[in-house]
Amino acid sequence: MSRKAPIGVFDSGLGGLTVFKVLARRMPEESLIYFGDTAHVPYGSKSPEAIARYSSEVARFLAKRGIKLLVVACNTSSAWALPAIRKAVKVPVIGVIEPGARGALGVSRGGRIGIIGTEATVKSGAYEKAIRALKKGARTASAACPLFVPLVEEGWWSGEVVESVARKYLAPLRKARVDTVILGCTHYPYLKPVLARALGSRVRLIDSAEETARETEMILCDLGLRAPRGGRGRREFYASDAPERFRRLARRMLGAGVAKVGLHQFDS
Amino acid sequence: MSRKAPIGVFDSGLGGLTVFKVLARRMPEESLIYFGDTAHVPYGSKSPEAIARYSSEVARFLAKRGIKLLVVACNTSSAWALPAIRKAVKVPVIGVIEPGARGALGVSRGGRIGIIGTEATVKSGAYEKAIRALKKGARTASAACPLFVPLVEEGWWSGEVVESVARKYLAPLRKARVDTVILGCTHYPYLKPVLARALGSRVRLIDSAEETARETEMILCDLGLRAPRGGRGRREFYASDAPERFRRLARRMLGAGVAKVGLHQFDS
Repeated sequence: MSRKAPIGVFDSGLGGLTVFKVLARRMPEESLIYFGDTAHVPYGSKSPEAIARYSSEVARFLAKRGIKLLVVACNTSSAWALPAIRKAVKVPVIGVIEPGARGALGVSRGGRIGIIGTEATVKSGAYEKAIRALKKGARTASAACPLFVPLVEEGWWSGEVVESVARKYLAPLRKARVDTVILGCTHYPYLKPVLARALGSRVRLIDSAEETARETEMILCDLGLRAPRGGRGRREFYASDAPERFRRLARRMLGAGVAKVGLHQFDS
Repeated sequence: MSRKAPIGVFDSGLGGLTVFKVLARRMPEESLIYFGDTAHVPYGSKSPEAIARYSSEVARFLAKRGIKLLVVACNTSSAWALPAIRKAVKVPVIGVIEPGARGALGVSRGGRIGIIGTEATVKSGAYEKAIRALKKGARTASAACPLFVPLVEEGWWSGEVVESVARKYLAPLRKARVDTVILGCTHYPYLKPVLARALGSRVRLIDSAEETARETEMILCDLGLRAPRGGRGRREFYASDAPERFRRLARRMLGAGVAKVGLHQFDS
């Protein structure tokens, strides 16, 4: 495997660009290929079997393009599909759940961790498992927030509507007196100010993107696969449907760096 | 073609059950097969090509099961995919756009028609075309309301959040002083009380389900294909992903009649 090979980053749609952005900032010399499975977005309300099938197809596509490591930037896919993805490709695969869990335990004072995510992510219990594997006595509480993704995609990142949705969804976490909350969906960082107001300023918010990027860096380093210093990596983007729409929204998130978006369709 | 053959009803997800319900009430002697393409829901933010591809596959599946007529209960699919569906199957195909347009012109006093729907439906301009084909001087105004579908699916059919979303989305229609509004998405009938409050009580709301069911009845009658009187039709349900979830939500909408939901997956 070449050190100059790209890192693959995969999400069900646009959300994973928050992870892509941190990777690009931390490691400008690494080449990155992003895949948004816009034909099947959102994963959050699909069955575990469908999530595993879609994720494996994307992973195989990226493996064929010669990636040296795959970052599964989608929480839902990380929660349900890592075993299937690891069967489908030979490169190392990093999900966002474990880094998020580690990040939360790192800053939590009282060990009371809240988790918010899609219906499928919360139902999986994956964060709870990861947290308890790292720290036995930790206490957790979780809340599914299905409207946050469409609100972010609609661009309603502040204002009356999203504030009131946040208060409603987060009430159980306030009641459970969590001291730290994991943003268990890559769309949620856009809502940080709203979430902070709804939870109170003492609650720490953990965005898995930063943690995941650090983990990626360390694994590449351990494997002797970090790209040579001083270079500048390529950036490539693919979507499985409506690449022009993807490009427009991706530019809003990443700026001018999104030159073109390739279309790669699966069988259906 | 046998008069006892079933009618096919198709939607991207659960929304088309509003049409299914009216069909079942008006014509209890007809057998109905419903297909919810839950593997690809929502269609509203997908590309026209993807919408046409998914719709044709569903139509072919239903044709194989011997339907005598196909009702495309999905507005997005009716707006973009009718030509592709008509190429894919030989039975008569009815969309919801024309019936909705006719219904709106039937009750409108001033000929000022508002249209609300998904991003893709509004972008297609299909309702405007259908309205102008029926009445040249009619004036139209439209608004995409992407958050209504997730709000309905979350079960938030009333309350602070949905009221405030509705006021925001419908402001341009109030400004255009429409006298009639077409609910251009099968999910929206659940929000009728909220929409009525946001638009003012003088504005008439047109739900395409009733119009579409009437059109279906008339076409079957013209073709000599109405089921024999006095019988009781079968009801069948299929979904392309997560049939148990579909069943749970469909029972909330239709009651105990939803005995079981078959899973039919497409290639991806």
